[in-house]
Amino acid sequence: MSVEEVKQVAERISSMEIRGAGKIARSAAGALKSYAVASKETTGAKYLEGLSKAGEILICARPSAVSLPNAVRYILYRVEGSGDRKASALRKATINAAEDFIENSVKAVERIGILGSKRIEEGDTIMTHCNSSAALSVIKTAWRDGKEIKVIASEARPRYQGQITVRELAKEGIPTSLIVDSSVRAVMKGVDKVVVGADSIAANGAVINKIGTSQIALCAQEARVLFFVAAETYKFHPETCLGEIVEIEKRDSSEVASPEEFPGVDILNLAFDVTPPEYIDLIVTEKGIVPPQAAIMVIKEEFGWAVGGKW
Amino acid sequence: MSVEEVKQVAERISSMEIRGAGKIARSAAGALKSYAVASKETTGAKYLEGLSKAGEILICARPSAVSLPNAVRYILYRVEGSGDRKASALRKATINAAEDFIENSVKAVERIGILGSKRIEEGDTIMTHCNSSAALSVIKTAWRDGKEIKVIASEARPRYQGQITVRELAKEGIPTSLIVDSSVRAVMKGVDKVVVGADSIAANGAVINKIGTSQIALCAQEARVLFFVAAETYKFHPETCLGEIVEIEKRDSSEVASPEEFPGVDILNLAFDVTPPEYIDLIVTEKGIVPPQAAIMVIKEEFGWAVGGKW
Amino acid sequence: MSVEEVKQVAERISSMEIRGAGKIARSAAGALKSYAVASKETTGAKYLEGLSKAGEILICARPSAVSLPNAVRYILYRVEGSGDRKASALRKATINAAEDFIENSVKAVERIGILGSKRIEEGDTIMTHCNSSAALSVIKTAWRDGKEIKVIASEARPRYQGQITVRELAKEGIPTSLIVDSSVRAVMKGVDKVVVGADSIAANGAVINKIGTSQIALCAQEARVLFFVAAETYKFHPETCLGEIVEIEKRDSSEVASPEEFPGVDILNLAFDVTPPEYIDLIVTEKGIVPPQAAIMVIKEEFGWAVGGKW
Amino acid sequence: MSVEEVKQVAERISSMEIRGAGKIARSAAGALKSYAVASKETTGAKYLEGLSKAGEILICARPSAVSLPNAVRYILYRVEGSGDRKASALRKATINAAEDFIENSVKAVERIGILGSKRIEEGDTIMTHCNSSAALSVIKTAWRDGKEIKVIASEARPRYQGQITVRELAKEGIPTSLIVDSSVRAVMKGVDKVVVGADSIAANGAVINKIGTSQIALCAQEARVLFFVAAETYKFHPETCLGEIVEIEKRDSSEVASPEEFPGVDILNLAFDVTPPEYIDLIVTEKGIVPPQAAIMVIKEEFGWAVGGKW
Amino acid sequence: MSVEEVKQVAERISSMEIRGAGKIARSAAGALKSYAVASKETTGAKYLEGLSKAGEILICARPSAVSLPNAVRYILYRVEGSGDRKASALRKATINAAEDFIENSVKAVERIGILGSKRIEEGDTIMTHCNSSAALSVIKTAWRDGKEIKVIASEARPRYQGQITVRELAKEGIPTSLIVDSSVRAVMKGVDKVVVGADSIAANGAVINKIGTSQIALCAQEARVLFFVAAETYKFHPETCLGEIVEIEKRDSSEVASPEEFPGVDILNLAFDVTPPEYIDLIVTEKGIVPPQAAIMVIKEEFGWAVGGKW
Amino acid sequence: MSVEEVKQVAERISSMEIRGAGKIARSAAGALKSYAVASKETTGAKYLEGLSKAGEILICARPSAVSLPNAVRYILYRVEGSGDRKASALRKATINAAEDFIENSVKAVERIGILGSKRIEEGDTIMTHCNSSAALSVIKTAWRDGKEIKVIASEARPRYQGQITVRELAKEGIPTSLIVDSSVRAVMKGVDKVVVGADSIAANGAVINKIGTSQIALCAQEARVLFFVAAETYKFHPETCLGEIVEIEKRDSSEVASPEEFPGVDILNLAFDVTPPEYIDLIVTEKGIVPPQAAIMVIKEEFGWAVGGKW
Repeated sequence: MSVEEVKQVAERISSMEIRGAGKIARSAAGALKSYAVASKETTGAKYLEGLSKAGEILICARPSAVSLPNAVRYILYRVEGSGDRKASALRKATINAAEDFIENSVKAVERIGILGSKRIEEGDTIMTHCNSSAALSVIKTAWRDGKEIKVIASEARPRYQGQITVRELAKEGIPTSLIVDSSVRAVMKGVDKVVVGADSIAANGAVINKIGTSQIALCAQEARVLFFVAAETYKFHPETCLGEIVEIEKRDSSEVASPEEFPGVDILNLAFDVTPPEYIDLIVTEKGIVPPQAAIMVIKEEFGWAVGGKW
Repeated sequence: MSVEEVKQVAERISSMEIRGAGKIARSAAGALKSYAVASKETTGAKYLEGLSKAGEILICARPSAVSLPNAVRYILYRVEGSGDRKASALRKATINAAEDFIENSVKAVERIGILGSKRIEEGDTIMTHCNSSAALSVIKTAWRDGKEIKVIASEARPRYQGQITVRELAKEGIPTSLIVDSSVRAVMKGVDKVVVGADSIAANGAVINKIGTSQIALCAQEARVLFFVAAETYKFHPETCLGEIVEIEKRDSSEVASPEEFPGVDILNLAFDVTPPEYIDLIVTEKGIVPPQAAIMVIKEEFGWAVGGKW
Repeated sequence: MSVEEVKQVAERISSMEIRGAGKIARSAAGALKSYAVASKETTGAKYLEGLSKAGEILICARPSAVSLPNAVRYILYRVEGSGDRKASALRKATINAAEDFIENSVKAVERIGILGSKRIEEGDTIMTHCNSSAALSVIKTAWRDGKEIKVIASEARPRYQGQITVRELAKEGIPTSLIVDSSVRAVMKGVDKVVVGADSIAANGAVINKIGTSQIALCAQEARVLFFVAAETYKFHPETCLGEIVEIEKRDSSEVASPEEFPGVDILNLAFDVTPPEYIDLIVTEKGIVPPQAAIMVIKEEFGWAVGGKW
Repeated sequence: MSVEEVKQVAERISSMEIRGAGKIARSAAGALKSYAVASKETTGAKYLEGLSKAGEILICARPSAVSLPNAVRYILYRVEGSGDRKASALRKATINAAEDFIENSVKAVERIGILGSKRIEEGDTIMTHCNSSAALSVIKTAWRDGKEIKVIASEARPRYQGQITVRELAKEGIPTSLIVDSSVRAVMKGVDKVVVGADSIAANGAVINKIGTSQIALCAQEARVLFFVAAETYKFHPETCLGEIVEIEKRDSSEVASPEEFPGVDILNLAFDVTPPEYIDLIVTEKGIVPPQAAIMVIKEEFGWAVGGKW
Repeated sequence: MSVEEVKQVAERISSMEIRGAGKIARSAAGALKSYAVASKETTGAKYLEGLSKAGEILICARPSAVSLPNAVRYILYRVEGSGDRKASALRKATINAAEDFIENSVKAVERIGILGSKRIEEGDTIMTHCNSSAALSVIKTAWRDGKEIKVIASEARPRYQGQITVRELAKEGIPTSLIVDSSVRAVMKGVDKVVVGADSIAANGAVINKIGTSQIALCAQEARVLFFVAAETYKFHPETCLGEIVEIEKRDSSEVASPEEFPGVDILNLAFDVTPPEYIDLIVTEKGIVPPQAAIMVIKEEFGWAVGGKW
Repeated sequence: MSVEEVKQVAERISSMEIRGAGKIARSAAGALKSYAVASKETTGAKYLEGLSKAGEILICARPSAVSLPNAVRYILYRVEGSGDRKASALRKATINAAEDFIENSVKAVERIGILGSKRIEEGDTIMTHCNSSAALSVIKTAWRDGKEIKVIASEARPRYQGQITVRELAKEGIPTSLIVDSSVRAVMKGVDKVVVGADSIAANGAVINKIGTSQIALCAQEARVLFFVAAETYKFHPETCLGEIVEIEKRDSSEVASPEEFPGVDILNLAFDVTPPEYIDLIVTEKGIVPPQAAIMVIKEEFGWAVGGKW
């Protein structure tokens, strides 16, 4: 794949033809692999220059999707760290890293389910919020392993993704309750564990996720209920080490209520909130279960971007 | 009004012809006043016996409405406490107490607005929940007094009473934002005060109110935001001194989502929750502003039902 | 009963012939009643002087037993507050107050059981500590009312009063577990309510009780488990309003371990500790259920000793 | 004393000829007493009208001094509550109440010392802030009773009242340390009790005192150190029940630093702050030691101004 | 040592002939060293296969003892990480790693004493629980260094290991107090530091130790007392990164009380509890002092098992 | 530079001719670089021995300045970790590491400003304490980037370094308020972020800084205000991993008040306090923004001194 071809993948990402955090990341990894296969560069230095440029093109296609720059960084970090500086060795390292990334990404949700479900106990009542495939993988794996569990799902206004969740769980046969978001604290005493997903995770372990997550975490902490986050490692956000703030998206008011019906009212529709690390007990990744304070270590191991690195 | 007539009022309360906490209470007070006017008893003892019986009939009409037994207790307590034991004097005491109760009840919301608004400061952003006339009286009085305030109202799923609130406030011209219930913690840092109503208030200062209130109180405490409850004194619940637990009503599932569309899912619809007194800064009543720990004192002064009383 | 006879009762209290908080208090009340019956004083002033002196004699018999001065204070407060100042009226008031006190004291444990058990719910797991008849009355009444409950009792080293408790509960047929005192926090998550007794209660609502109580209260608060204290009103300690500190008794080391076997080791045996009011949800008395902050109000109503009183 | 003479006292208060919380209050009480002595009214109603007017004149002389309206309220409340409605009886009641108030006020600091020092234990290290005669009375009484104590005083920038305090304590021979205000948390672990005064106390138990007090209270709570407030009952603020907010005085910048030397800098000089009741263990008044939650009860007993009163 | 001989060591571990966390671990390390010495394999791959199999045999001998798999992992991790892939080099690496492990293990308790005692200050009162040689090494080293300290030891019901502790400390001449487990909170204000051992430590820094430890940690945190854990690095539990939950052993009821004497009573005897990392200030290992959040880093450095590793 | 010349640099450090944390550190790094340039050793082993000795000489010049041993450790760690063991290669490695250290140190404050200012938002009110060039770099960079911010600076008794801060900020045109240290809690509600410097940072993330810092951190946490520390990586304190306690300097009493004017008073002048990691949100270093729990990782990366290292 020439640089032109990398650009085409970038365009398909940019145009939303390729979408979903996992798919975007794997496409980018695949593009870098193809680049390596096709590359004709004879010196290591030139090869690295070209690979780096290809990575930049891909990242610029949709910089806000944390999984995309992470896929690129994952590969570049491993290529740069491989010992042999010859072009052929670097090409090989690129291909290996890209294949590793893709395989890991494909199996991540399943793997998170396997690891996380070990923390679910017979008889647990689990609360979840919104609709996260990683969180549901934990819950379903526990159920399929024969653990008698119950689930309470909040509806997740304004878009009611909780309704998708309860349908999905009821189809599995799991006893499931649906509540309005305001009921969280009232039912928390009967809950054993909270399991939610993550949109992205900052270097200090703070979790950005669907609006309402931080409120559930606060209620869980007050009631001494364990709070688990299930998230692929490519959700960890390296730039936060460098001071970048994760912007909270404001979405269209009409998702909450029709503005015409409420003249003079500002209808505020925040899509996400930030849960501080002190409210999180564990983060279940496909590579192991870590406390939120180890987020910076995950970022360093996966993407090589941390204290003491070059800028 | 004979006992028969008292029974008619009781029936109109029981049949929901008379409804609303304030109206029910005032009807009961009015019935006891009419009873006093019409009574022909010549001894104090007989008069008291009849009055007590009339009170019982009224209370039984709808015992779950805390304002109804409170109206009866308010009057009986004052009649029993009046010095003169002659029938005529007791009749007079009954009429005075009933008139006091009615007048106070009619003016309570206005009075709460006057007292509570003194605690609202120029520039405050106030959060409210559900649709409480006492809470809104505080907010509107502050606005009418010329204080530049803003309001954030949560929608209060499942019945969206928050939408009624924002319409009411926007009509006054108050800058008002509407949010989903899950946004509470995310916007709390910009809030100066929370003002909510109460369904009833227990002897230990715990406040029973619309589902979601306790969650907002928890978020307010975490952020060191003042949390005010606005409530008429007839909302205070004397029986809680005697061990009664305030039951939390579960309402119909279909208010949350259509059960047919969610086979196998238990849709849980709690109507109220309990906010513990340590999360409440002040309770604004029409008779003064008190900390929640003084709830038992309010009950004693208003209804004479407290430690050391007879059973 | 002449003053001489009052002195005899005082001696029987002092010599421990009469013992137990309830019995001591009732004997003192009975002695004052007999004094009133026998008194020949013709002026109110003289009668009061004599009564006051009789009270002092009784209190001095064992001033550390909070129930004894409380019995005396209960009666004197009511006699002084009665309107008529004639000797005959004061005698009558004395007799009435003494009889009220005795009757109330006899029925207090039963009454506490009735009020407190309303707060116990079907399916509750209740933790208790040491061996308190008031606390056990709450538990047994709930059980006899048909509520399916379980009890976890800590053994209460060094004197193992918890073993008396579990035998007593097992005899009733209540499912009961016995744990070592160190297991409290480990099992707290499965507990719904803690119910303990009290040795005495200070004016600020702090509860003095068997060593270990404050630790259980802290664990309960951490786990958001309700913490109830069951105590007769004569356990409330009026002097604490005047700055007196409740002394914590240190008991003999040999209750913990034989000092000879531990040369050079200071074996510390504290009998009681102080649970601060912020860890207590409710105090169940025979006259109603109050929050700990209302302790000063209980003291004022029962013993007339409070802010604004004379010294 | 005619109304004219009352006006003269009011003027001396207004012109600051009479100053200091205690002196102002006692002058007002004395003026009302003289008014009663001089009054020629023959009907109770007319007398009360005149007395009430005299009270208003005095209050208006300096309404911000909480002790002044409290002195007037203390007397009016007792006069209105006395049974006999004849002018002569009301005059007598006025004189009695005024004398009680004055005597109590004169002895209050000594009395606070006696009650509060009972809570100071041998070997205690006590922190104090600013220069409060009530707080120092507690400390000095404990010392004079032979308790070996140490004191740490913060300097209380910007006016260094802590320096007055340490001189006063060192003169008594009490081992005393002086620290800068920033050292409070660093030394708190070695402190056993904090004792401070109060400028005024709100109905919910919040204490308004010298800037820095709330910060010390927060540090004390973090370290589980007892926090005592020593204050005369006339410091309790009845209007706070009615929604009044205690205004925090901003004082002249030059007390902190010379504004000319800091062009462009806003030098903010807050004189007081508010300590929330949850950080206060006990309030020592001359009439007893109460928890902060009982503040509203103190106000009711002393000034008759509370829930259920008339407006 | 042939594989047969490794099996013999495994059997001696399995049969409890070899016991104690340290001894088991060192025996396993010794067996792997002997295996390396005796091995005749000529290719690196074959050697590694055999070594890995030998490791598995050892681990299976008693998988619940965390020190055993850690010893094996420690060696395998270093062998695999050594550069040279020849059989002879790998044998050398095995021998080195085994000797390092053994030497470190033997000196660990002494080393922990040296590091930990630096944090003990002249005049400290130290609380300890149960009987941990690592914790006591810290205390004794401080004492031998001439620091005047005092120790308070809880008795650790049901097996009274605290009595062993106080005897051991009193023999050293250290002023030592023995208390019942319920006294912990009552005496905590006079404590400067808590030092306890650990049975094992999870990847998130949670410490599994003798029942009662978590309760002491909670009391320490409430009183702002430092809480130290002293533990050898082989106590850190790598599998917890992969979702394994540390099981809490339930021991025989008769240790608490004779079941025959308590018919109908369930005597619950939990051996251990879990102290959450937020209650722990520092963990003293023989390789340095780390905060609990660094537990995952210790696991990674010692056993190579962490985020990003292969599975 | 011969060893003699290294000694001369050491002497200039020791005599305070060279002073300031940054300058001392850079002089030491420069001395080691010169040593490498001048060294004539032909074997790697001898060279390392000499370099190590030179390092020791420098460290001994002023061991309490954390930046000095850190400079030495930074270089030695990199030299020892470089692959090639020949003298010439080690010399080259020494020169590179020294140059890296110096360059990084020179640019650190600017770099901290760039990274930290990304976390400052338009409209923020920022509190700072004392006078830290790293903290002010964050504030000034945000201002120069065009963000409308306000600053509140505490005066930092006893030496009023806060006055230097406000002058510096006012000169930039930044709206700046000066407060006394006791005002911190009173104004905290209007603060968005606190930014302070650090004297040194322990392995567990605790920050040693100017007296008053921990108190501000506590107030910030109570009010949910973000608390940032700005510090160069050479402020991190490796020895704390080995149990060393950071000593808190007591400075001369006369800085607080003239001792002659306060006979009998102990004027205590602590220069620094310790802020626990749980009160700190982020530490901004020139190499990235890290949570305080990652301090041990910074120490390991920068100075190679951590768990598992040799001793």
